[in-house]
Amino acid sequence: YGDPMGEYDRLMNHASVWDVAAERQVQLKGPDAQKLAQMMSPRDVSKCKIGQGFYTPILNKAGGVINDPILLKLEDELIWLSIADSDVRLYAMGLADAYNLDVEVTEPDASPLAIQGPKAEDVVADVFGERVRDIRYFWFVQTEVQGIPVVLQRSGWSKQGGFEIYLRDASRGSDLWDLVWASGEKVVGEAWGPGAPNAIERIESGLFSWGTDFDEQNNPYECGLGKWCKLDGDHDFIAKEALLRIKDEGAREALVGMHLAGDEPLPSVVKPMPITDTAGNNIGPVRAAVWSPRLKKNIALARILSSEAALGNPIRADVGSGFADATVVGVPFD
Amino acid sequence: YGDPMGEYDRLMNHASVWDVAAERQVQLKGPDAQKLAQMMSPRDVSKCKIGQGFYTPILNKAGGVINDPILLKLEDELIWLSIADSDVRLYAMGLADAYNLDVEVTEPDASPLAIQGPKAEDVVADVFGERVRDIRYFWFVQTEVQGIPVVLQRSGWSKQGGFEIYLRDASRGSDLWDLVWASGEKVVGEAWGPGAPNAIERIESGLFSWGTDFDEQNNPYECGLGKWCKLDGDHDFIAKEALLRIKDEGAREALVGMHLAGDEPLPSVVKPMPITDTAGNNIGPVRAAVWSPRLKKNIALARILSSEAALGNPIRADVGSGFADATVVGVPFD
Repeated sequence: YGDPMGEYDRLMNHASVWDVAAERQVQLKGPDAQKLAQMMSPRDVSKCKIGQGFYTPILNKAGGVINDPILLKLEDELIWLSIADSDVRLYAMGLADAYNLDVEVTEPDASPLAIQGPKAEDVVADVFGERVRDIRYFWFVQTEVQGIPVVLQRSGWSKQGGFEIYLRDASRGSDLWDLVWASGEKVVGEAWGPGAPNAIERIESGLFSWGTDFDEQNNPYECGLGKWCKLDGDHDFIAKEALLRIKDEGAREALVGMHLAGDEPLPSVVKPMPITDTAGNNIGPVRAAVWSPRLKKNIALARILSSEAALGNPIRADVGSGFADATVVGVPFD
Repeated sequence: YGDPMGEYDRLMNHASVWDVAAERQVQLKGPDAQKLAQMMSPRDVSKCKIGQGFYTPILNKAGGVINDPILLKLEDELIWLSIADSDVRLYAMGLADAYNLDVEVTEPDASPLAIQGPKAEDVVADVFGERVRDIRYFWFVQTEVQGIPVVLQRSGWSKQGGFEIYLRDASRGSDLWDLVWASGEKVVGEAWGPGAPNAIERIESGLFSWGTDFDEQNNPYECGLGKWCKLDGDHDFIAKEALLRIKDEGAREALVGMHLAGDEPLPSVVKPMPITDTAGNNIGPVRAAVWSPRLKKNIALARILSSEAALGNPIRADVGSGFADATVVGVPFD
């Protein structure tokens, strides 16, 4: 797959394709599919149109974030939750069984392929036709190419733009790959190639990640997901009572960006490292840190006490070789 | 860890220790802990005493086997489900949230260590004292050694006998390992060493494995778990209605053992391979096949149509290099 910086360049300036092996779908099918999805989502799922995707936290009754998938409404009685990792399926099954809902909770045959980067649309248009340019962000079409059935969505785990193709017939995987590859070579030329979610790009873009930066122990207000929590709508959901209480009490922690001092690259941080206030009190962990080639700065994502999360607040972060001065900044970084 | 046959010999004739990295605990804590466990188990959980373990299928409402953990009753309001893989936690959380149960569903700090083999009891007695010899199968004690808190259970994923030690303070992991290691060297001598669940031993012993040989798509009658399903007790559980129906209809498939023709070792089978009746009709997959050093035979575990599952029935199995004659036999193999 070449070196990480080559992949970074490809994603930022051209286009790349990757197999989203870790991504899974959870399928809710039946008369109560929407009811079940609504139980777990703080957004008003009835407002999601057929062919539209909704990014949504999936919350348990305590308000903990079980995951943050994209919800795809394929039909009135057919919903997919496209999750990056972990599992939502068994939680959904538990609710469905307990409430005696008329819905099947399964993992459908749908392997996703991501095409990301500024030239991704050109590649996808070459495969599926010019109409793909009219697809809005997170919307999708159910279509096929050379008899290969897919769901084609404008989406993807980068901020460089792109599409996800959910293959609905696993036996046609190499056929689809070959088609996409040929279009990539034709449209992008030499710079076309395979990729993967890029650690540098995801941090620069401020894409907080379930499982890495936050998890089920966190409520949505602690991880930048508060804007998706609509507490005054007509829709009811299982976490509503907890969220009303948590919102009233105020979130204890916040996910923030940080600039780290120094204009030389520091080693990347891949495990939680301590952050302190200027007096040396622990205020939370660094979740991920990298040298940003675009900004020529060391940047990091962190979860710290809300009381220390004001933009511009000076703090200190353990960067492996000792503590460095740091500043709270907004994300995406600029 | 040495060669697989060395590990096999150690497990069959001596004792070995292994870190059960994949194993996880699900903790149910609170006034409704037992109620929640009972919803998912077809056994009468009220009959499990404090200090006892119950092997139990965990079933969803359709009767599908979500997992088959050992349930440990630590206190009236504290239950662990010790699962080998997959997840039961989110299903339990879904039920608890939906039924508004007063119970916390968490993953406790409890890393298991397995000591297995005919000399395992001697090793464990050297670490924890002679009273461990009185612990009955699947029963456990909550104890400590040199201040290291553990749950010590007679259990383990082999038929060679042994114990599982659930460490309740992750910071003492290397202390516990050192103690066990020293006792192993003292009691077993040269033959002591590290191990792992052994593929040959588990097949010889007929230990069918969730995720490999069966999964949530199967009901307990299809995977040798029917004997744990008590449908005429006073206890109610969420799968009861489905099991009554399935039992009435009869299971479509059965897990069986097979002898494969030939007295030379065939290659091990690690992915599902076709099995046919003598007329060539597909009747199900081989799940796992090995050469048994003890029996000097090629043996296999398989899931086939119930109509073909009678002991002694001649069938044919794809062994990679073509189809071999095979015979249905009981497990454990002898």
